[in-house]
Parts: sequence; C-alpha cells; structure tokens
Amino acid sequence: MFIGQGFDAHRFAPAGSGKELWLAGLRWDGDGIEGDSDGDVAAHALIDALLSAAHLGDIGTLFGVGRDSVGAGRHGADMLRTTVAHLAEHGFVPCSASVALVGNRPKIGPRRAEAEAVLSDAVGCRVSLTATTTDGMGFTGHGEGVAAIATALVERCHG
Amino acid sequence: MFIGQGFDAHRFAPAGSGKELWLAGLRWDGDGIEGDSDGDVAAHALIDALLSAAHLGDIGTLFGVGRDSVGAGRHGADMLRTTVAHLAEHGFVPCSASVALVGNRPKIGPRRAEAEAVLSDAVGCRVSLTATTTDGMGFTGHGEGVAAIATALVERCHG
Amino acid sequence: MFIGQGFDAHRFAPAGSGKELWLAGLRWDGDGIEGDSDGDVAAHALIDALLSAAHLGDIGTLFGVGRDSVGAGRHGADMLRTTVAHLAEHGFVPCSASVALVGNRPKIGPRRAEAEAVLSDAVGCRVSLTATTTDGMGFTGHGEGVAAIATALVERCHG
Ligand SMILES: [Zn+2]
Ligand SMILES: [Zn+2]
Ligand SMILES: [Zn+2]
Repeated sequence: MFIGQGFDAHRFAPAGSGKELWLAGLRWDGDGIEGDSDGDVAAHALIDALLSAAHLGDIGTLFGVGRDSVGAGRHGADMLRTTVAHLAEHGFVPCSASVALVGNRPKIGPRRAEAEAVLSDAVGCRVSLTATTTDGMGFTGHGEGVAAIATALVERCHG
Repeated sequence: MFIGQGFDAHRFAPAGSGKELWLAGLRWDGDGIEGDSDGDVAAHALIDALLSAAHLGDIGTLFGVGRDSVGAGRHGADMLRTTVAHLAEHGFVPCSASVALVGNRPKIGPRRAEAEAVLSDAVGCRVSLTATTTDGMGFTGHGEGVAAIATALVERCHG
Repeated sequence: MFIGQGFDAHRFAPAGSGKELWLAGLRWDGDGIEGDSDGDVAAHALIDALLSAAHLGDIGTLFGVGRDSVGAGRHGADMLRTTVAHLAEHGFVPCSASVALVGNRPKIGPRRAEAEAVLSDAVGCRVSLTATTTDGMGFTGHGEGVAAIATALVERCHG
C-alpha cells in the first residue's frame, strides 16, 4: 500500500470573464475560476495524490504546464481518467481517495453525492469529498480563490 | 482500508469576548476562539477525515451548520464520539488518525500527551497530534486564527 | 498500519542574507530560507508525518526548538535519518511517504528524481514529491515563503 498527498489552489476569475466554475468534476453556477485546464482544484489535488502514491511525479509531469500543455482546456474528470490509465500502465490501482475543499463557494453539500459519484467513477474507487471555509481568513476566506488537499492510497495490481 | 482527509480553520475571538479556547479536546488559557461549537479545529478536521474515510459526508452533514446546528455549543471530544458511533452504525471503525495543528498558540508540546489521550479515547484508536507555525506568514502567522489538517484510516467492522 | 500528517512553512531569507536554499534534501540556487536548521520544509513536514504516525510527538519533541536545539544547523536528510532511527528504537518502520510542496520556487520538476532519491534513501522507503503554487495568492503566492504538507504510513517492525 502506498500513500500520496496532493494540494492545489486556483484563483476565482473576475466577474464577467466568461470563465466557468468547475470543481470536483461538476460545473457550478457563479463566477468562474482561472486555469489553463478547467481549474478544478479538487481533481488536480487528487491527481497529484494519485501520481505521488504511485511515485510517478505530479500533474505537471503528466500533463505539462501552461496553455500549450496536454491538460489545456480539459476537464478534471477526464484528466483523472488519464491519470488512472497511466497508473495502470505502471502497475498501480487506486484503493481509496479523499479530498478536502477549502473555500467560500460553491456550497458543496447539496451536490456532494453527485460530485463524489463523478470523481469515484473517474478514479475507479471510492472518492470522498469534504468542504470547509477558513472563517473569513487568508486567500480562501477573502474569496480570492479555492484550495484543495487530497490524499490517496494505491496498491500494485495483481496478475 | 479507506483513507480520509480533513481540514478546518477558526478565527481567534477578540480579547475580552468571554469565549474559551478549546483545541484538541482540551481547554487552554488565553483568548478564545470563534465557532458555533467550541471551535476546536483539531477535533473538527479529525471529524471530517473520519467521515470522509467512511464516505459519510462531512461535519456539516452530521452536525449541521450555524447556531441552530446539532453541534452548537458542543465540545470536540463529544462530537468525535458521536462521529465514531455514526461510523459504527454504517459498519466502519477507525484504525489510525493524525492531526497537524498550524498556529502561533497555544503551545501544544507540554500538553500533547494529555490532548492525544483525550482524542484517542474519543476516537477509539491512537490519534497523534503535531503542531507547527507558519513563521509569521499568512493568517495563522499573523495570529488571526488557527488551522488543522487531519488524516485518518478506517476499515469495515468484521462480524 | 499507522498514518501520520505533517505540515511546515518557512520564510524566504532576504536577498543577500547569505542563507542557502535547502528543500527536499537538496541545495537549490537562489535566495535562501530562514530556519535554525537548514529550513527544509519538505524534510520537516515529513519528519512530523513519520513521528505522528509512530505516536512519538513532533519535530520539536525530537530536535527541540530554536538556535540551541539539537536540530540547529542540521540538514533535512540528516534529520530524517535520526527520525527513522528513533522510530526503529520504538519498533516502527516507514512504509510509504509523500510530500506536497507549495510555493513559487524553486522549480522542482527538473530535479524531482534527485530529490526523491535523497529523501527515499534517508527514510528507507519510497518517498514521493509533488509541487504546486497557489496561483499568486496567500503567503506562498506572494513569494514570502514555502510550505509543505506530508503524509506517511508506518508499521510495527516484525521480530
Ligand atoms: Zn490546478
Ligand atoms: Zn470547525
Ligand atoms: Zn521547519
């Protein structure tokens, strides 16, 4: 059993930027988020946790960085599928994963089951999602952006 | 074996607010902390990690949010007991848990064993506690509040 | 199997301070970092995760705090070796560990394999390293300092 830790943070886009808000594999109402991909910090932190557990680098290793990266314009769930396929090629399979979202919005509770279903389907094991705020403190509390801390367990494929 | 990640942060109360300082299951000297419950970020991050590992939502799912929540006025250790009973009802038992406290105060070292005993007793498995600062940076470094990052392993009950 | 969570953050030293930049067991070009030891947040977060998993306190318990501490002037990899020897004395062996670095610099990618080799050699099991930024937000995004979140699995030694 191998463990991985992941972290990500993205800035909310200015109002009227036309950017969409994608988080935890879902599109949400409200002003969008910055990022060359869809800016889904939950998916990105999860990708880092999975790659780290399998000792395969991080999201930059697999998808590159910036507008010309392989991840540019892609959605989190799609990137998670690519990540899990990459792990399988190297003989690893995800066992369990969890993401803690930190930010003022969106309110996760009403759509938690939906988000967990999308993430779990993409990763191929149970993925859980919690959400909290920082009580008005720091960049997440001031509404500048949103962050995610993820952890994952993977094991070697058998056979 | 399932893994969970949890995070929480609360603001210190203004001097003279009459609020108490509860952290990691203990009451500490000094100005208190904000929160509808006792504001114990270590307990709350741990609750999120445990619920997430068991795929049972987060602290808001179990205790509600705000002054009228089921958690209002309750202490962290008490809320941890309710959490673990909830896990048991769903067939899960905690195996191991760890919390990293981030903040300028209180100084945890001298009372670490006491705090770990209270948390471990409430969770029913060994809970470890570390503490660090952010070197004067960010909301924890400026003394605005305190944060906690927690992780937990749970497994299905046998029989 | 026991799990541990660790966190650390250090401030970058002012330009021309003569301080070196040590991170993840390596020396990097560029302005240095503050700390009584070499300020290696990746190593320190990892030490806290390992000690927490083994229920042996945190880096302050083992190395002390401040300029007169046992850790003063020591490098991260060296402190990791002392930590793992301390775990062994108490019957624990590291199984897997992962660190997520958060900051603007240095760029980890080109030297990730080198850093992972140094950390893995010091810990005696596979240690993985990811790196991300906070999109210009918060103390890491403003370039004030760097942070690390680590997690580790340890088990009891057999025999
Ligand atoms: Zn991202
Ligand atoms: Zn709380
Ligand atoms: Zn340190």
